[in-house]
Amino acid sequence: MARKLVVCIQNITEDQKRSIESAALDRGWTAEFYDVKEEAAAAAKNAEVVFADSPRYAMDNPGLKWICSPSAGVNHFTSREYFLESGVMLTNSSGAYGVSIAEHVIMAAISMLRCQPEYQADVASHVWKRGYTIGCLKDARVTLLGTGDIGRETAKRLRGFEPARILGVNTRGQEESGVFDQVVGVDRLMDVLPETDILVMSLPATASTYHIMDSDKLALLPDGAVIINVGRGNCIDQEALVEELKAGRLRAALDVFEKEPIPADSELWDCPNLMITPHVAGDMFLPYTVQKIVDQFLEDFKRYNEGKSLLRRVDLDRGY
Amino acid sequence: MARKLVVCIQNITEDQKRSIESAALDRGWTAEFYDVKEEAAAAAKNAEVVFADSPRYAMDNPGLKWICSPSAGVNHFTSREYFLESGVMLTNSSGAYGVSIAEHVIMAAISMLRCQPEYQADVASHVWKRGYTIGCLKDARVTLLGTGDIGRETAKRLRGFEPARILGVNTRGQEESGVFDQVVGVDRLMDVLPETDILVMSLPATASTYHIMDSDKLALLPDGAVIINVGRGNCIDQEALVEELKAGRLRAALDVFEKEPIPADSELWDCPNLMITPHVAGDMFLPYTVQKIVDQFLEDFKRYNEGKSLLRRVDLDRGY
Repeated sequence: MARKLVVCIQNITEDQKRSIESAALDRGWTAEFYDVKEEAAAAAKNAEVVFADSPRYAMDNPGLKWICSPSAGVNHFTSREYFLESGVMLTNSSGAYGVSIAEHVIMAAISMLRCQPEYQADVASHVWKRGYTIGCLKDARVTLLGTGDIGRETAKRLRGFEPARILGVNTRGQEESGVFDQVVGVDRLMDVLPETDILVMSLPATASTYHIMDSDKLALLPDGAVIINVGRGNCIDQEALVEELKAGRLRAALDVFEKEPIPADSELWDCPNLMITPHVAGDMFLPYTVQKIVDQFLEDFKRYNEGKSLLRRVDLDRGY
Repeated sequence: MARKLVVCIQNITEDQKRSIESAALDRGWTAEFYDVKEEAAAAAKNAEVVFADSPRYAMDNPGLKWICSPSAGVNHFTSREYFLESGVMLTNSSGAYGVSIAEHVIMAAISMLRCQPEYQADVASHVWKRGYTIGCLKDARVTLLGTGDIGRETAKRLRGFEPARILGVNTRGQEESGVFDQVVGVDRLMDVLPETDILVMSLPATASTYHIMDSDKLALLPDGAVIINVGRGNCIDQEALVEELKAGRLRAALDVFEKEPIPADSELWDCPNLMITPHVAGDMFLPYTVQKIVDQFLEDFKRYNEGKSLLRRVDLDRGY
């Protein structure tokens, strides 16, 4: 019996399906494509590889060896005991979202600096009002907490705006791409926050990033600083942030939240100095992103067949 | 009697006043500063130079030689017969707004590509909804109609987003800065519109730019194209554009309009696929912009005293 690959990816095109099918057939596999999760789950029962976004495929499925998630953040896998115990190898699609998320970050940062929430609320009420005090990226001190694909693509795009400096913060305290002016270790975070006008967070959800921006660290940011979070919601103590936003001391553009969707009774909905987007910065409706996810899967699928280590394998202990 | 300079500039700082005062005193001038236009107008009656934003200073004021406007677009001067007849020399502050407006343009373009009007309307109704089909600057074909300070600063910032190409369009069909991939003459506009995903307009209001984007030219843009106008409102046939927006064929972010403020009964207010900002792209509330306006005035004030030609002198026939 041919080895079986099951694919269930949103917005995948017919061309992309054909390229996956051809890569499978060439190597003696069958490839099956599903739009509906439940059907994919049933078909995956005797699959060796699954390219889809749920840890469920690993449940009661002893033949499964590898799941490739189309997501970059995979805490929905690593937080499941049964998945960790299944022994199934996990790769993610880190690297596919940087371009999309970086465009979102720049848009969100300028929107907050230029008082877009205020201007757009006025316009929605048919009010022509000028004179909100705005800021700009030029000469701003930008700190990127997280220097992975998202941080790097953001830094590259920021450069043309001539910020005062682009500082990266990560666990290692170093980074080789050369797109940052300087990179420091996360142990220095308290030192750099007071000199940060714009804080861009692109961290995965792990034990060590949980509430990394707590009330004490938020308090270190200067008045008027802008926080952009496109990583995971629980990296910020959301309640503490809301206090700062309500006080008008900080401004924020959040794409991720502690609870998603945001509950109907959450005070976030009407919180001032906040721009909400519903976890769409790394939107899979962007054709560029879907193509990159597929290309990266195919790259690792080839390596898998050649017995090589997979390029985007997730360290399940570390969580990314 | 000392030669007199009258200054009436919004948001000018005490430091900036001192630097102007010192430049004046050093050259045997007196400098007077006013916050209120009427007081400035009265004081200007025996001034030789005025640094302020109205042609009125030239009315019944035979001693006046030069007005430096803090605006870049000066059609509020060149459209006044009495001003043209006064013989007063006019300089503008072109060059001071490029940074601010370029940041606005990038923000507006990404906002429209990423369906921010839709997402923000949902959020305002406390609705968490994903899945609008978004686009990105990466691989987009960008055309900049107008290659002055605004066009150039926008092109510089666009580069990092890796668009398919950055094309400039101007009267001369050439441009020396090197920030565009290609520059063509405005006589080629009809040829390039069908290959334009994002059209950025930064034109002055002159006889030849009036309704330069009329219904015929709008129809040449491909479906889903985005228009950003930060120049002057009457460069677009607004009624024709509204038809395209209502049909959902084009999207636009307009900062300038045929009538400003937008009249209360205008259909623009509730027009779909449109992001309105109240002529704030080149906002004088941005400290960077005010500093640049003052620096440029001082540069020309020095030249004026040295009998040199002024760097930002407006050609009153051409209108910019």
